[in-house]
Amino acid sequence: MSPKPLDYESLNENVKKVAYAVRGELYLRASELQKEGKKIIFTNVGNPHALGQKPLTFPRQVVALCQAPFLLDDPNVGLIFPADAIARAKHYLSMTSGGLGAYSDSRGLPGIRKEVADFIGRRDGYPSDPELIFLTDGASKGVMQILNTIIRNGNDGILVPVPQYPLYSAAISLYGGSLVPYFLEEEANWGIDFNSIRQSVAAARSKGITVRAMVIINPGNPTGQCLSEANIRELLKFCFHENLVLLADEVYQQNVYQDERPFISARKVEIIAKILFDMGPPISKEVQLISFHTVSKGYWGECGQRGGYFEMTNLPPKTVDEIYKVASISLSPNVPGQIFLGLMVNPLKPGDISYLKFATESKAILESLRKRAHIMTDGFNSCRNVVCNFTEGAMYSFPQIRLPLKAIEAAKKAGKAPDVFYCLKLLEATGISTVPGSGFGQKEGVFHLRTTILPAEEEMPAIMASFKKFNDAFMEQYEDYRGYSRM
Amino acid sequence: MSPKPLDYESLNENVKKVAYAVRGELYLRASELQKEGKKIIFTNVGNPHALGQKPLTFPRQVVALCQAPFLLDDPNVGLIFPADAIARAKHYLSMTSGGLGAYSDSRGLPGIRKEVADFIGRRDGYPSDPELIFLTDGASKGVMQILNTIIRNGNDGILVPVPQYPLYSAAISLYGGSLVPYFLEEEANWGIDFNSIRQSVAAARSKGITVRAMVIINPGNPTGQCLSEANIRELLKFCFHENLVLLADEVYQQNVYQDERPFISARKVEIIAKILFDMGPPISKEVQLISFHTVSKGYWGECGQRGGYFEMTNLPPKTVDEIYKVASISLSPNVPGQIFLGLMVNPLKPGDISYLKFATESKAILESLRKRAHIMTDGFNSCRNVVCNFTEGAMYSFPQIRLPLKAIEAAKKAGKAPDVFYCLKLLEATGISTVPGSGFGQKEGVFHLRTTILPAEEEMPAIMASFKKFNDAFMEQYEDYRGYSRM
Ligand SMILES: Cc1ncc(COP(=O)(O)O)c(C=O)c1O
Ligand SMILES: Cc1ncc(COP(=O)(O)O)c(C=O)c1O
Repeated sequence: MSPKPLDYESLNENVKKVAYAVRGELYLRASELQKEGKKIIFTNVGNPHALGQKPLTFPRQVVALCQAPFLLDDPNVGLIFPADAIARAKHYLSMTSGGLGAYSDSRGLPGIRKEVADFIGRRDGYPSDPELIFLTDGASKGVMQILNTIIRNGNDGILVPVPQYPLYSAAISLYGGSLVPYFLEEEANWGIDFNSIRQSVAAARSKGITVRAMVIINPGNPTGQCLSEANIRELLKFCFHENLVLLADEVYQQNVYQDERPFISARKVEIIAKILFDMGPPISKEVQLISFHTVSKGYWGECGQRGGYFEMTNLPPKTVDEIYKVASISLSPNVPGQIFLGLMVNPLKPGDISYLKFATESKAILESLRKRAHIMTDGFNSCRNVVCNFTEGAMYSFPQIRLPLKAIEAAKKAGKAPDVFYCLKLLEATGISTVPGSGFGQKEGVFHLRTTILPAEEEMPAIMASFKKFNDAFMEQYEDYRGYSRM
Repeated sequence: MSPKPLDYESLNENVKKVAYAVRGELYLRASELQKEGKKIIFTNVGNPHALGQKPLTFPRQVVALCQAPFLLDDPNVGLIFPADAIARAKHYLSMTSGGLGAYSDSRGLPGIRKEVADFIGRRDGYPSDPELIFLTDGASKGVMQILNTIIRNGNDGILVPVPQYPLYSAAISLYGGSLVPYFLEEEANWGIDFNSIRQSVAAARSKGITVRAMVIINPGNPTGQCLSEANIRELLKFCFHENLVLLADEVYQQNVYQDERPFISARKVEIIAKILFDMGPPISKEVQLISFHTVSKGYWGECGQRGGYFEMTNLPPKTVDEIYKVASISLSPNVPGQIFLGLMVNPLKPGDISYLKFATESKAILESLRKRAHIMTDGFNSCRNVVCNFTEGAMYSFPQIRLPLKAIEAAKKAGKAPDVFYCLKLLEATGISTVPGSGFGQKEGVFHLRTTILPAEEEMPAIMASFKKFNDAFMEQYEDYRGYSRM
């Protein structure tokens, strides 16, 4: 009998080629163990609320009121909602016709796109056009749509950093393009190595691949690096000369902990569009750039709401129309997520009734993340055969694990990649659910794992102690005078 | 200079091929007119809240409380929220770890998938497995994912009804498949004509196309038909013999107004999975079926929330795993939308505190939709050269407009399709924003327009009068003794 259309052998080959490690073997095993009653510490996804981070109160009040607009007429509403939340809910409801229950324009509500443009203007000092800002169900959906727009066939190449957040590799497989890897330099705090990029591009071209786009994640996931202005300028020049569109994943632009390095302007992430405009023509007028942002990260961490946007720079109107048309197929992004985005880009100001509470809550989250970044980096660096760059930004730690040859052989015997083997043992021993470095890409023969820095601050010391105990026992067990994996 | 990667000529050709009429030329012109201050009646999208339908109170209360869980500890909460809403909010929050701010499993929250399975079990009398139910950001996203899974290349054909909701044609273009049209029979109340299907399949095969899937929309959009049990049985047999996966778009399963036809069991939409199981083996065990549902329609109309699901029947576990993997790329559907879905499939029961209000609200909406379906059909049928089937289900009316040859020539001169010409004139004259039949597909030389039945009941008579006035003047102006478009 011939296979049926949805039997495995009949599926779209691109679907089968997709690899997605963040919810891969380790995650599935962790879910099983959890079902069996084991306490699991999920550090596989940057999902702060799942690990106990509380939502900011004010935005939740506003969205709750938008969901229940009949409360605005309730004489008792003032007993449980502050006046500025009520005013802001009215503000957003006035931007919709039909409230949260109506599809919006497929690009998002015009009023909120205007708030995003104003935010970008204030942030960068250059005006931004709401017509070039599209709201999305989280940044992921925007990235996927843009890659689907760019990729024509398997000869179209997209430069992706290694290690990278696997959204990129997965979406490139799904849409049938070619991933062209470029390495970040672990020894240079995960900075960009332009020689490596030039080599990658040359190698891809010699295989007949047209390199069309470059992805940059800043601050980095999984690497946690914050790129310097000089690095970004060089990147933009490179894109200009090589005729590449730059996809700038800046979802962690609020997550920065690099006060360690005072000569680099403290607590500030460089914004790629701003540097582009600073550079002036021809580069500022020529390089095509798409930047992505989200409510899932920062001190918001509102991952479940799925609010995001992308901003397009130097794209011709006909292309913007095509992107609009494709967005229309699924009608509109979810409207509550759009309101969260509005609240994020247009936050409370000093003097507002709820400002103090809002500022206190957000500062506490950011300060605690900073502390956790330190505890984690220091913890990893205190372990045998583990070396780890400091998390300058984002929410991750990406330590290198130098595996004894004996462990690598044991992994091979078990039919596992060495880092998967290590992470599985870690999971079974401690309940800490990480993602093996191979899920993000790493140099041949070098091994890492990725954790988020998100477990609650008070649990952090115990988690790191439990990690250390496991690691040091593992290193003891597999100790091998012949040597270790490469660095 | 060579074009840049995001210049129009460089884009993915499949993106450019996408046509999407629901937000096409007519919609754009209507938006322009609105900006210029003209009052526009948007009947182009099934977006009930945008036209004044009020949300059901109880689900909004529950989701508002889930957004603001700190209210659950507020001593005053009982002053503005009923006890059953409070209890239900706690119920849903207990299903999440991290509330609405955390990514859920990529398939959706297990607790809500269980509620969906229970609903299906009650509805159809056959048990349903939560592991085969995936929650989505509205039905559209699910349909797109499944089409992307099925389509391998341009030789893969998908049978799509004509006229159809253009989500299908657009997504098939986007993923590079071939649309194989089959006609619904206007004279037989838009029923399925199996001879036409067999001819379409034969014609496609003779061009080297592998027909792999069939789409059915029941109740229909834009046609408003409700298929009979006999029609659906024949459909399932056909899929069995031709080895087709059936994609059943059942988003309008609660929207039924066919009490007109008492011999067909009144006010009931036939559910395709139920009929599949009723048929017994081999068909019930062999035909691969995916059914789609949403919170956007019914008496909910919660379009902006983007909550939906699909249920898979007779798919092998390896395929389900692949679909799960691809869903993981974008992490999770929005969580508030999942809760709306839970509330829809697990509604209040008689005896619950808020039941009476809930039942009154939903009954009023459905009754009013029924009345509007009548006013609209009767209104169209009272117009010169307009004939219209009754809206048995869904939210649309799809009258045929018999255009005088003179009007067709005038359209040609203006460079417009004849139905687009008519709809543009209608828009300019009355502010009524419809979609030309060509956006959905229609037989060569036959012309329609589609409106929703959603304008407020009290405005309906005036809208239909305004339509009649325009139409009759149009027919007068273009009157042509030579004759009319085909029927
Ligand atoms: C680098 C990066 N980009 C994008 C995303 C996706 O964010 P969103 O929730 O907005 O889809 C993530 C999530 O972890 C991320 O780490
Ligand atoms: C037939 C049909 N399917 C699917 C949809 C999409 O619904 P959702 O809002 O769940 O994406 C619509 C919306 O109008 C529709 O008419």
